[in-house]
Amino acid sequence: MNIGVLGAGQLGRMLALAGYPLANRFTFLDTTGHPSAGIGEVMIDTDQRHLEEFLSKVDLVTYEFEHLPVALVQDIEEHKPVYPSSEAIRICQNRAEEKALFDRLGIPTPTYRVVEHADELEAAARELGCPVVAKSVTEGYDGKGQAVLRDPSEAHDAWRQIGHPRLVVEAFVDFVREVSIIAVRGRDGHVVFYPMAENVHVDGILRYSLAPMPDLDDSVQLLADEYIRTLLDELDYVGVLTLELFQTRDGKLLANEMAPRVHNSGHWSMDGAVTSQFENHLRAIQGLPLGDTHARMPTCMINVIGREGDPAEILTLEDAHLHRYDKSERVGRKLGHINLVAPTHAELLEKVRACARLLPEAPEPRFSFE
Amino acid sequence: MNIGVLGAGQLGRMLALAGYPLANRFTFLDTTGHPSAGIGEVMIDTDQRHLEEFLSKVDLVTYEFEHLPVALVQDIEEHKPVYPSSEAIRICQNRAEEKALFDRLGIPTPTYRVVEHADELEAAARELGCPVVAKSVTEGYDGKGQAVLRDPSEAHDAWRQIGHPRLVVEAFVDFVREVSIIAVRGRDGHVVFYPMAENVHVDGILRYSLAPMPDLDDSVQLLADEYIRTLLDELDYVGVLTLELFQTRDGKLLANEMAPRVHNSGHWSMDGAVTSQFENHLRAIQGLPLGDTHARMPTCMINVIGREGDPAEILTLEDAHLHRYDKSERVGRKLGHINLVAPTHAELLEKVRACARLLPEAPEPRFSFE
Repeated sequence: MNIGVLGAGQLGRMLALAGYPLANRFTFLDTTGHPSAGIGEVMIDTDQRHLEEFLSKVDLVTYEFEHLPVALVQDIEEHKPVYPSSEAIRICQNRAEEKALFDRLGIPTPTYRVVEHADELEAAARELGCPVVAKSVTEGYDGKGQAVLRDPSEAHDAWRQIGHPRLVVEAFVDFVREVSIIAVRGRDGHVVFYPMAENVHVDGILRYSLAPMPDLDDSVQLLADEYIRTLLDELDYVGVLTLELFQTRDGKLLANEMAPRVHNSGHWSMDGAVTSQFENHLRAIQGLPLGDTHARMPTCMINVIGREGDPAEILTLEDAHLHRYDKSERVGRKLGHINLVAPTHAELLEKVRACARLLPEAPEPRFSFE
Repeated sequence: MNIGVLGAGQLGRMLALAGYPLANRFTFLDTTGHPSAGIGEVMIDTDQRHLEEFLSKVDLVTYEFEHLPVALVQDIEEHKPVYPSSEAIRICQNRAEEKALFDRLGIPTPTYRVVEHADELEAAARELGCPVVAKSVTEGYDGKGQAVLRDPSEAHDAWRQIGHPRLVVEAFVDFVREVSIIAVRGRDGHVVFYPMAENVHVDGILRYSLAPMPDLDDSVQLLADEYIRTLLDELDYVGVLTLELFQTRDGKLLANEMAPRVHNSGHWSMDGAVTSQFENHLRAIQGLPLGDTHARMPTCMINVIGREGDPAEILTLEDAHLHRYDKSERVGRKLGHINLVAPTHAELLEKVRACARLLPEAPEPRFSFE
């Protein structure tokens, strides 16, 4: 089975590492000119002339990046199976569509407005009450294309700064923590759920994901399972879907956004779960039975961003698993991650602190349950 | 770090899969014309003209196969670091040298003789008492180049059948089970040991490896640790070394043979240990700290030989980890392995039986402790 992947970054790389043991081969289609997968066959297609050749090589197509032209993916669907479908891409790459879907399916979200003019942004900020977060409806990624308005008067500046004709404006949520649920749906409609992770972002970039959470009520996990299952079934989805949520003080979950792919907040599963999100995505899209999603032990993923530190020092930590992406250092760039595994949450936190001290750019680790 | 690997089979493939997360790249030198690694850069060098090019690409060299011309490896050592050294290869590829080393270091072996003529083989069989096992001193692999003599009169037939000018003849050992110890020595001389595995061979080919063993006395593990540490230190060895042993009824260990590389009886570590043998080999040869070798849970590796069965059925088993080598089916060919993990040995055995039923060529699993 030769699997075609749209995009050739670290997510594709880790998909391939999980797929070789299933006897999969990988062909990547990179449209950026800067692939970093470093594995499998990488086709650079900046001039859109290699699609036919790519399709001739592969049995099915998946992607590691949802900000793809929907028309392109629909075109590919005419020739090869694509999982998840172009419909998932269409919705996930547009925050307005996504929120409308959440509304339709009864999945609560922060109060929001869609605006198409700086004046509308100002009015929405006034109506919702500042602070509000304004986000471009498309192409947002890792905190880009976003602005926080502390006062409605900042609307025109924010509008210019984001530079997008359509924004979603969200009321501030007084959340306890940011969490995510990752689920996998097979071709037969069977769904499995990973334990939810607590995610710590700094400057809009994920820094830490920890799962399972020590203080999560089963009912909250079940609620998240229910929300994501509704989405998966509605989209007749195949593969890994990620839903990021806010957990509020009164235990509610508010959907923030979703990603139709393996996700940074699921990297802990590579060493912490019985089956990784990458392997389960590949199992799903090939129609294979899905693997057990249970956590073996409390696990924390730390993103390595900007600078790598000394791998030799990191590897002295017990049960630390280094995942380097073989990229050159650059400010704000995701260069790798480290999974730390420990028998108890107390030991895990100690290990996380020790590891963070070895990473030049790691912020202080702080979790809601400490 | 670009790592050059001599040989391009499944062991090289699994080394690479373990090495990408350490930001290693891999170049394989295949001298057979039939590489199967399917990953990294594979150079086919059947005419011995590509060695210089290979060496120009790599930072250090290791191997997945010890039956290499020693002169070739010595030549490579003039240009790049080679781990383990050519001295390890020289000894491990010659059973007579290997046994002499065991003798010198006080590591007990089955009683043996080295013979260079059919008449000497007959005399040795008579002296040691049949049955005896005769093995060519070089190039034996997976039971090839071996014969069992039930009577000294079979010596001339066995001599012709093996067709080798020098044989080692071993007295029959009334062993309880075949076991192996895998250890890793870093560049700094630090050594870590994996829990010993019980190995089940059929027709000279490994079928099952199970670790840790439920009934192994700590003192036996410590004895094996001591034996292999002596070997590692004597050879100033860097990387993974495997020592296969017989465990006798009175709890003694007799060394059978050693392999200067990652080993089939250590594949369980990919899913059953904190750090796999592959990752630890790569850490060792790069001078990185060695990883924890503890078993997370009882684990059994089943080799998939000859025919694959249906991967979809195998993946329905809980905590089953499929490792396919992406090879075509052929009688006696190692096509992959499956690691089964379970919280108790009783559950593990049940799972092993269920899995064996799904593999067309798997013999009935039988372990000494059942």
